[in-house]
Amino acid sequence: MIVPLSAHPRATMRDPARTRERILAAALEEFSAKGLAGARVDAIARRARINKRMLYHYFGDKQALYREILARKLRERAASVASAPDDAAESLAFWFDIVCRDHDWVRLMQWEALDAGDRPVVGEHERRRAYERGLAKLREQRARHLIAADLDPRHMLLSMMALTTFPVAFPQLTRLVTGRVPSDPAFQRQRAAFLRRLARALGPSPSRSGQRTRA
Amino acid sequence: MIVPLSAHPRATMRDPARTRERILAAALEEFSAKGLAGARVDAIARRARINKRMLYHYFGDKQALYREILARKLRERAASVASAPDDAAESLAFWFDIVCRDHDWVRLMQWEALDAGDRPVVGEHERRRAYERGLAKLREQRARHLIAADLDPRHMLLSMMALTTFPVAFPQLTRLVTGRVPSDPAFQRQRAAFLRRLARALGPSPSRSGQRTRA
Repeated sequence: MIVPLSAHPRATMRDPARTRERILAAALEEFSAKGLAGARVDAIARRARINKRMLYHYFGDKQALYREILARKLRERAASVASAPDDAAESLAFWFDIVCRDHDWVRLMQWEALDAGDRPVVGEHERRRAYERGLAKLREQRARHLIAADLDPRHMLLSMMALTTFPVAFPQLTRLVTGRVPSDPAFQRQRAAFLRRLARALGPSPSRSGQRTRA
Repeated sequence: MIVPLSAHPRATMRDPARTRERILAAALEEFSAKGLAGARVDAIARRARINKRMLYHYFGDKQALYREILARKLRERAASVASAPDDAAESLAFWFDIVCRDHDWVRLMQWEALDAGDRPVVGEHERRRAYERGLAKLREQRARHLIAADLDPRHMLLSMMALTTFPVAFPQLTRLVTGRVPSDPAFQRQRAAFLRRLARALGPSPSRSGQRTRA
């Protein structure tokens, strides 16, 4: 069977899985650079070196492509929640390291914030459930006296996200305040050490909270 | 003297101070909605109900207008730094309240982050100086034993910004995690209470740090 190369390139026909991956990588770059609203399917197709009709054939439309990217990121994060250390001090440093290695995710969230504000977002249901898993872990740690009993787990989780994500989300502010950019390994070491120190302060303190006593 | 109304509207001639204010208010709305790169001078002139040439006459170009907006915001913030409470616990709640009432500032920072990354920004020098004032205040509090001695003031300031700004900067994440939007007064009360509790944990603890003893 002979088909026009522009519509069905042979490489694409031969390896649909690799083509899908190439499209997804190109889409992530474009969404990270311009956001869902600003991204253009033409630009994604160009980056992926694929015909635009073929892209539609694989993924439907721009919205569907974005959904797929978000779903993948959520699966990655779910795996991270499962492997996060129990220890609160290590847990903050662990999440900070993940954020540092996934700048694209932070940018997607930032574009979304500017665009959607507090209105419903793509993947609403799955994302709420993902945070519920994080909250369940914090509640469990609180029950085991690893976290002070009077700290609200919802605000605790929001604060963990804030402390780890903010420096990467606002690189210009990080630079103005600390003199270092968030991609600087020295900054990342300092930050991880600070987060460990901070987390220790949030553990249950016998002398303060009176929640438990130790010999 | 008779001038064409479109070039020099009478109201404008009569009250240049009010006209400037109207232009600045319109520009802040536009920059907040679209960022410096996305904002259009046409749209600002339309919002301000003024001729575009007149706008250029008052402020030069878009960049100069943005500079003026940023300079004003910095003056407001400098006044806030001066009136911020000394007490660390109250200080976090104080800054959170300011952030909640200045959503535009948060959006400007967010657009800037997406656009400039860690490269130099508008008002670089003044902004660095403004953060230096905040750092000086933290160092002074540390010297007076109001803050634990082993907390790095730069990371402390960055964390204070994170804890207060993140929930407003990412309203969708705040909603997904806490079930409330950041503009909800109930959310703001909960958050302020949590921040006070958090700040107390970061004060010097005789039983932990061994930095000082109290009778």
